[in-house]
Amino acid sequence: MGTRRQITGFSNPTVKLLRALRDKKHRRREGRFLAEGLRLLTDARAGGRLPEVLVMAEGRDPHPLLADLEAAVLAAGGDVIETSADILSKITGKDNPQAVAGVFAEWDTGLGTLDRGAAPIWLVAQALRDPGNLGTMLRTADAVGAGGLILIDDCADPFSVEAVRASMGALFTVALGQARWDEFLGWLRAGPGQLVAASLRDAVPYRGAPYQAPCFVLVGNESRGLPEDYEAACDLRVTMPMKGRADSLNAAVAGAVLAYEVLASLGR
Amino acid sequence: MGTRRQITGFSNPTVKLLRALRDKKHRRREGRFLAEGLRLLTDARAGGRLPEVLVMAEGRDPHPLLADLEAAVLAAGGDVIETSADILSKITGKDNPQAVAGVFAEWDTGLGTLDRGAAPIWLVAQALRDPGNLGTMLRTADAVGAGGLILIDDCADPFSVEAVRASMGALFTVALGQARWDEFLGWLRAGPGQLVAASLRDAVPYRGAPYQAPCFVLVGNESRGLPEDYEAACDLRVTMPMKGRADSLNAAVAGAVLAYEVLASLGR
Repeated sequence: MGTRRQITGFSNPTVKLLRALRDKKHRRREGRFLAEGLRLLTDARAGGRLPEVLVMAEGRDPHPLLADLEAAVLAAGGDVIETSADILSKITGKDNPQAVAGVFAEWDTGLGTLDRGAAPIWLVAQALRDPGNLGTMLRTADAVGAGGLILIDDCADPFSVEAVRASMGALFTVALGQARWDEFLGWLRAGPGQLVAASLRDAVPYRGAPYQAPCFVLVGNESRGLPEDYEAACDLRVTMPMKGRADSLNAAVAGAVLAYEVLASLGR
Repeated sequence: MGTRRQITGFSNPTVKLLRALRDKKHRRREGRFLAEGLRLLTDARAGGRLPEVLVMAEGRDPHPLLADLEAAVLAAGGDVIETSADILSKITGKDNPQAVAGVFAEWDTGLGTLDRGAAPIWLVAQALRDPGNLGTMLRTADAVGAGGLILIDDCADPFSVEAVRASMGALFTVALGQARWDEFLGWLRAGPGQLVAASLRDAVPYRGAPYQAPCFVLVGNESRGLPEDYEAACDLRVTMPMKGRADSLNAAVAGAVLAYEVLASLGR
């Protein structure tokens, strides 16, 4: 059984440690990240992940899901901390924090953890810098039943508070891979898989393009798009109508429109 | 001709006035809003809108587009202010501000300003609360060549710094309407127009649904979706496959997937 305790001081070392998890450097060192809100923690549990530490605000409304979660965390050897709403707000960095937050261990996001045969469609993002876009793509991956989201090169940190929040819990239900481009390409070419780029160059219309499962839908950086040699390495380059300015579409939106087209094309 | 002057003090009343424009109450009172960055200001000019006040940081890199813009603002009777990077940062509320920002007059967003015959497709959002989603929908409207984006009920402020930023300039190129639901419905029913809801209830598959121009694609609030009676008032309710949890898709993403389907269906 884990322990249950109360923290009342802002300068408590645990408070400092939890607060530091908002910083990427500290997350890397600790291998831990923060998720806040009962909804997210419930999704996490449904996805098979329990927090190592559960932090709850005093004076919260009682909730049967929260009571269940607390018992599950203690039974699994985790810690439960009760503290003031002010201190919880300091930890999460939000003025109006949810009544509960959890500290989770990061998990292995190596490509070796992914099973390409698990789904007909996968999402791949290269140098995606906005944590909100990353969270949105996790939600899209969940919606289209993708095998997972693979992050290539220097993307936003999927374990950042902003990405976790924007994922609305999909971080816990969608498989996640992280790799450099060369490593990804080596992994991809070691088995079946069609790599499709959303592109403006040398591309065919995205409607009716010859998609094949497992289809890996690749979108590039928000402002620069994909490097030319990355596009050249793709099996298929498709383009969407752009009636306005050249870079109208948000990267996560382009990925979603393309993913739904692939889904329909593959008849799933 | 407008005037050109320098501001060196943080407590200068103009600085306070500009800074206050980040606040919705002050924007409403002044009928003015802030946009930052040369890219945005250039898009604005291309869309026929010049700032009333142009604020530039000292020590910026010279740029021909900026010099052009400065001359145009002065010729139109606007003011040009030079100030320190620190003060510009205080005005825009960004740690790393762009070298230039502009103050624009808000424009009329009444439904009477919109021409429904201008395009085969329109985007409509109800109670969209996230300024990032609003900006993303403006970009999508630009991409699909929509007649405009119509905001229903209490949406995020399209003139907020966050929405303007997320729109990547599309605020200046896409027509914008704002109305309460009853007013919108009255306007819509006074002429041709098919209202289509992205829905989970009593809906047909979104692929191959009988879309008709001008088609108004309606998405609801990020967490609550559309009110039931709003959905009932629509001409067509369509649903997208959701292979994961019920509310996987981000509202702006759902709108974009649907808008691209309508675009393809109408053969534009």
